[in-house]
Amino acid sequence: MSTVKVIRNILEANDRIAAENKERFDSSGVFVINLMSSPGAGKTTLLERSVEKLGKRFQVGIIEGDIQSSVDAERLEKHKVKAVQINTGGACHLDGNMIRDALDVFDLNSLDLLVVENVGNLVCPAEFAVGEDMKTMILSVAEGDDKPLKYPLMFQESRALVINKIDLLPYVNCSIKLIEERAKALRKDIEIFQLSATKGDGVDAWIEWLAKQIEKKRDG
Amino acid sequence: MSTVKVIRNILEANDRIAAENKERFDSSGVFVINLMSSPGAGKTTLLERSVEKLGKRFQVGIIEGDIQSSVDAERLEKHKVKAVQINTGGACHLDGNMIRDALDVFDLNSLDLLVVENVGNLVCPAEFAVGEDMKTMILSVAEGDDKPLKYPLMFQESRALVINKIDLLPYVNCSIKLIEERAKALRKDIEIFQLSATKGDGVDAWIEWLAKQIEKKRDG
Repeated sequence: MSTVKVIRNILEANDRIAAENKERFDSSGVFVINLMSSPGAGKTTLLERSVEKLGKRFQVGIIEGDIQSSVDAERLEKHKVKAVQINTGGACHLDGNMIRDALDVFDLNSLDLLVVENVGNLVCPAEFAVGEDMKTMILSVAEGDDKPLKYPLMFQESRALVINKIDLLPYVNCSIKLIEERAKALRKDIEIFQLSATKGDGVDAWIEWLAKQIEKKRDG
Repeated sequence: MSTVKVIRNILEANDRIAAENKERFDSSGVFVINLMSSPGAGKTTLLERSVEKLGKRFQVGIIEGDIQSSVDAERLEKHKVKAVQINTGGACHLDGNMIRDALDVFDLNSLDLLVVENVGNLVCPAEFAVGEDMKTMILSVAEGDDKPLKYPLMFQESRALVINKIDLLPYVNCSIKLIEERAKALRKDIEIFQLSATKGDGVDAWIEWLAKQIEKKRDG
């Protein structure tokens, strides 16, 4: 069917551009995360927490993706990191081309970590590589433990899964055990962190693990 | 640019099919809701609560949209309503064509209300009409009050906004007042309900309002 063909062509073209981005990242030794989640799962808050500490050890750059508005980039600039806002103007995900255009404002050779905060969406961002070293997803416990059943690709594509808002566990119907079992059934080597980005519990383990990935790329 | 043209053609073709669906709904006097939200905002739980009461007064049918799985349709069938599951197989939204194909299993003339529960996504579902009388969106307070700024089309398209999980308000950073102001700035006539679908608070006002819309169409 022709629709399917169109979509396949778009994905192939994107993969080509993402591979070019990846080459640039690799030659500069910058570790790149494609950070994905539903709207309001806590991407920006986790980023704020993370750059507070990582910013002392690494040069960090951030690309913010949103349909509209620049509230997230403004939040992050308060933390003295270079943040660029992409407004997708309707598109429900970032793609390789948007990231390539945004790279002009960074000096990649001076960066250790680049975080691409994708549009809040559990579906399409998982299909479009941007040149990242790893995809990471955040799932808020308020979203429920059935999400791996309904959005499997997102979990399969993610090297790390951050289960956020664990401070809400007493008030919601959500089993961490079920999320973990279901996520691991989709991807055996998925690294899972449980934390509360607003309260701070569990954030250090995530940051230390991430720091190791950054160092491995920078020094390797 | 050719990509834009492809997307426009897809949207035009969809509008045509949605209009055909709408004609069928109108001639049968069935009121149709296109229910949208982020993943885990509470669409299915609100539906369960609603059909418990509305099922005594009206004939209700439900179409469930998910990338994968049939957990939602199974939840709803326990409430003795006819529920059909559409698995979109990767697509991040339902469209007019998918709904047309699903209609075969319903006797439209015997229905008063048909609810189409869209894929959990705050972006694309707002662009694709399915033939509905009204779009309704759910926003969980756990998602935060910045969502109207970031996903304006969803709010502009929605005749009603259900602010859900108000029982979590003491534990999250979210201002109902800000959500309401920002939603009304996008659509002046948006009808706003505050409720907790799991606890039941506020659900009756939503159900009564909805019952009026169903009767208006059935009897008008």
